Amino acid sequence: MQTFSQFYNILENSLSIDNFHKEFDGLYGPVKYILTLPAKRIRPILFLLSHQLYNDDYEQVLPIAIGIEWFHNFTLMHDDIMDSAPLRRGFSTVHHKYGLNNAILGGDVLLIYVYENIRKYSPKGKLSDMLLCFNDAAIKVCEGQQKDIEFEQKILVSFEEYELMISYKTAVLLACSLKMGALAGGADNADQNNLYSFGLNMGLAFQIQDDYLDIYGDENKVGKQKAGDIIQAKKTAPYILALEKMTLKEKNDFVKLYIDKDNNPADKVKKILNLYNRLNIEEEVLSRKNKYQALAMSSLEMVSASDNLKQDLVNLSNQLLNRQA
Amino acid sequence: MQTFSQFYNILENSLSIDNFHKEFDGLYGPVKYILTLPAKRIRPILFLLSHQLYNDDYEQVLPIAIGIEWFHNFTLMHDDIMDSAPLRRGFSTVHHKYGLNNAILGGDVLLIYVYENIRKYSPKGKLSDMLLCFNDAAIKVCEGQQKDIEFEQKILVSFEEYELMISYKTAVLLACSLKMGALAGGADNADQNNLYSFGLNMGLAFQIQDDYLDIYGDENKVGKQKAGDIIQAKKTAPYILALEKMTLKEKNDFVKLYIDKDNNPADKVKKILNLYNRLNIEEEVLSRKNKYQALAMSSLEMVSASDNLKQDLVNLSNQLLNRQA
Repeated sequence: MQTFSQFYNILENSLSIDNFHKEFDGLYGPVKYILTLPAKRIRPILFLLSHQLYNDDYEQVLPIAIGIEWFHNFTLMHDDIMDSAPLRRGFSTVHHKYGLNNAILGGDVLLIYVYENIRKYSPKGKLSDMLLCFNDAAIKVCEGQQKDIEFEQKILVSFEEYELMISYKTAVLLACSLKMGALAGGADNADQNNLYSFGLNMGLAFQIQDDYLDIYGDENKVGKQKAGDIIQAKKTAPYILALEKMTLKEKNDFVKLYIDKDNNPADKVKKILNLYNRLNIEEEVLSRKNKYQALAMSSLEMVSASDNLKQDLVNLSNQLLNRQA
Repeated sequence: MQTFSQFYNILENSLSIDNFHKEFDGLYGPVKYILTLPAKRIRPILFLLSHQLYNDDYEQVLPIAIGIEWFHNFTLMHDDIMDSAPLRRGFSTVHHKYGLNNAILGGDVLLIYVYENIRKYSPKGKLSDMLLCFNDAAIKVCEGQQKDIEFEQKILVSFEEYELMISYKTAVLLACSLKMGALAGGADNADQNNLYSFGLNMGLAFQIQDDYLDIYGDENKVGKQKAGDIIQAKKTAPYILALEKMTLKEKNDFVKLYIDKDNNPADKVKKILNLYNRLNIEEEVLSRKNKYQALAMSSLEMVSASDNLKQDLVNLSNQLLNRQA
């Protein structure tokens, strides 16, 4: 049995991709670049931990775990273009380093390799179910990215719309990783669905925690400008929950202040934070996060595997959801 | 039994995509746009004609044919970005009409839908083989596009490199469409491979014919500037075959003239055409095309189906390869 940090090390040693054709360096160089950047490898670890609840032989499905991480990196390559982001966690984005064409084409070919790994390494008789789960998630990830882009242009966003967006853009892939692991390992339908639900709710809690930490996190650990989301006028959980507590008049004034990018940033942040404090937004956000975290845990409890085997999923989930930066 | 023009009509009526989620218009609008532009639908027709050699029930695999056409359109959406092309056959390209982000994300989600169609509609027990064939082609299409981009920066290109590029970028998808159709229809391995070879050689002949027609085609029918490839200094079959007939000194002068985009275009074209005439390039190009066309036909002859059933593949192939514009 492997712990999640053992799986992390196994993945770090396996992600480098000898199976990419060597004679096409121009195509695969940018792909290799993004795969060697430091990352948490959460999705493939979830896949492997979930598989391990039912099956000890992780090596046969390791390439599928790697494929899931490749898919995540395909989305990063293309999302970073759409966001015009020069940096991701301090490193040059692919399009910034290698140009637009290489970031598009590298992402495309990486997505095709994901399918080849799922095809080649899915257990006999399970390929169609594995693909059904994966395709559903992959389509939703694109739809979530589309919603995220549209949010930029929208001022009033409901919490339901926000939930749909983060569910599609972030949570379904965590859910799908867990479900595919269980499916490949031999779990029954009920366990597959409970693990999916565990991942979905964990993903929602994770994203809300992300929004929370931008404002209330430990600045030094986050390693980025405090309240950057406020300065960039992002439609985060605090913003949306604050809106829901306001009268029409208050909404107008708040939105005007929030979307004003010319304002002195420190001044703007101070005013918004005062307003959030008055409306108890910190508690409100935490209560949403806690709700999803509790739902995640109760889904995991219903999974039929032994508590001992499930413990590492609990540990990983706590580490992700209780982080303070 | 359906003729290829009947299949064309069936496809035109089925490509509109009710299965795309309606609530994400921003994402699927650009996809629907490109799928309604006029097109020859060669790849899905090849799939259906090949399937029909072995199986009369085309309806069960029609969604796979559609998926192959979707894949082709996914590549167009992304290639047009890479080529900075505002127009394709007289119509706005997707990124030009809807913006970069929509062209990237629309292509991505379309590619995922291709896989979902293959998953859902491949005959029982054949999904893995269908995907193996498709993934191999899809990876090569990306690799061919990479080579095509690299050719822009290269001056001396050998005919072997050119063949690899057009083989990957164009021919393998025709070959794969035929092989997947045969596989889904129940052909044995020998027939699958002969149909693949038929498609590959037809694709090579088709692309060489494309290069040929740019210079020697009927200008009015082509509907584009005659010798546009010379004006834009593209590394076409005539260019490469001319290079192969020159001394080092001649190569230098020729290349200097060919890549000079400041030259008076009419003047440049005239000089290059004179040179091509002196070197018998027209015959040289036609002889390469004819070689591949003959190879295609001899592969098709080896396919075990009746000549009557194969006739429509012969007709389609002749229509494509003997076109004069």
